[in-house]
Amino acid sequence: MFHHTTQIRVRYAETDKMGYLYYGNYATYYEVGRAEAMRTLGFTYQEMEEKKGILMPVVSLQMRFVRPAHYDDLLTVHTFLKKLPEKFMTFAVEIFNEEKKLVNGGSVKLCFLDAQSNQTVSAPDFLITPLLKYFQ
Amino acid sequence: MFHHTTQIRVRYAETDKMGYLYYGNYATYYEVGRAEAMRTLGFTYQEMEEKKGILMPVVSLQMRFVRPAHYDDLLTVHTFLKKLPEKFMTFAVEIFNEEKKLVNGGSVKLCFLDAQSNQTVSAPDFLITPLLKYFQ
Amino acid sequence: MFHHTTQIRVRYAETDKMGYLYYGNYATYYEVGRAEAMRTLGFTYQEMEEKKGILMPVVSLQMRFVRPAHYDDLLTVHTFLKKLPEKFMTFAVEIFNEEKKLVNGGSVKLCFLDAQSNQTVSAPDFLITPLLKYFQ
Amino acid sequence: MFHHTTQIRVRYAETDKMGYLYYGNYATYYEVGRAEAMRTLGFTYQEMEEKKGILMPVVSLQMRFVRPAHYDDLLTVHTFLKKLPEKFMTFAVEIFNEEKKLVNGGSVKLCFLDAQSNQTVSAPDFLITPLLKYFQ
Repeated sequence: MFHHTTQIRVRYAETDKMGYLYYGNYATYYEVGRAEAMRTLGFTYQEMEEKKGILMPVVSLQMRFVRPAHYDDLLTVHTFLKKLPEKFMTFAVEIFNEEKKLVNGGSVKLCFLDAQSNQTVSAPDFLITPLLKYFQ
Repeated sequence: MFHHTTQIRVRYAETDKMGYLYYGNYATYYEVGRAEAMRTLGFTYQEMEEKKGILMPVVSLQMRFVRPAHYDDLLTVHTFLKKLPEKFMTFAVEIFNEEKKLVNGGSVKLCFLDAQSNQTVSAPDFLITPLLKYFQ
Repeated sequence: MFHHTTQIRVRYAETDKMGYLYYGNYATYYEVGRAEAMRTLGFTYQEMEEKKGILMPVVSLQMRFVRPAHYDDLLTVHTFLKKLPEKFMTFAVEIFNEEKKLVNGGSVKLCFLDAQSNQTVSAPDFLITPLLKYFQ
Repeated sequence: MFHHTTQIRVRYAETDKMGYLYYGNYATYYEVGRAEAMRTLGFTYQEMEEKKGILMPVVSLQMRFVRPAHYDDLLTVHTFLKKLPEKFMTFAVEIFNEEKKLVNGGSVKLCFLDAQSNQTVSAPDFLITPLLKYFQ
């Protein structure tokens, strides 16, 4: 299994009138979690798009909202890969608050799209290779 | 079953560098869909919060992203209630583009929170009553 | 002078913990105002980008926040062109609430960018022509 | 003069179809800049709201967009106070990219609102005191 952790502080812009982190903004936190996870593997999502011409559209998303997060909370985003990507890459995510209580848990499934042909492709080798050691 | 339809035009602010409606912004479209659905039942989510002191936090969300939506697309958001709310209220959502092709489908489950006591409560009568005729 | 009016309802996603429409979201309302204004002139910003290859990056923005807007408020966005575009196109904007009180006023200045050459250009004829009758 | 620096990485969610950081999202970066600036002074905007009952609505905003920022850019946000706050508090902001080139410059003016009375008040002492040494 591959596991990565990053921290995100809740912005005022991201709260709603209930005083909560708006539920739609968790998708952005998931995005930051997986982008930072990929950076630790030695490449960036940005390079993958710009240099390799591979886009990763989201195929499905599911989330449970366990307790609210609030303005200025420093949240910890855990991002997990439980299996090697093949046609799809599925990230499991758990977000904890400063009291180490679970705020939100879920998963997001992405595919690989060749920007030139606009066809879905399998996970590219440059993504698989640095992941191999986590799945032995 | 209760069913409601509203239209939303994709804003530039809501697109991402792929040229797609960003996946996190669908949650906002779901929100608009259910707010407009409730308005047709004779009350607003705003009144429910301000006058009745009932908040509706989101408990869970699931979505499939079937095909991308793009800037300036006029999307049609279908919002369904397939059963009367009790402790929870679950909206099913389907979003179609101008070619009547499915863009996104999913569901969102909310609970009822008494703002004063901060306790979850059952669906209030003023919400159940106008829905009864759809479930006979 | 060219003048156009559109309406936008404040979404929950756009509010902040103060219960106000978050100040950064007015920029999106300005965007919707000018996009709808251009649509009444017989073309869309979307076509301008996709068919004509002209992008319109924002050069400067100024805003006064006169009174707060709140969730579910139906705001009226007035968009004005006070002179014909040349190298720049400046939209003046005034946003009013349902009590016809001014919520926000400001202006936004954009330039024209040829997507192919990445060079700024003058306002294209297809934009000037339908505007001429408003400036005689 | 008081000066503070923080870094923000551009999220995919914040880009638009031009591939730029969307112009409305700079307001959020300004917010993060001033929140982090206040944190270094020994208190948080969050405490100011929750414990002191002082809100800080934005009164005016102006920005110049000098060059685009892109996805994954690590931006440096400089936040300046050029004078002690009185009835208003004005932050000047300059945002630089990794090549140390100016991306955006502007200023934002806020007032102080007593949440209980809903009246504007002068800058509170707990805010002035830690700032005094920067203005001698």
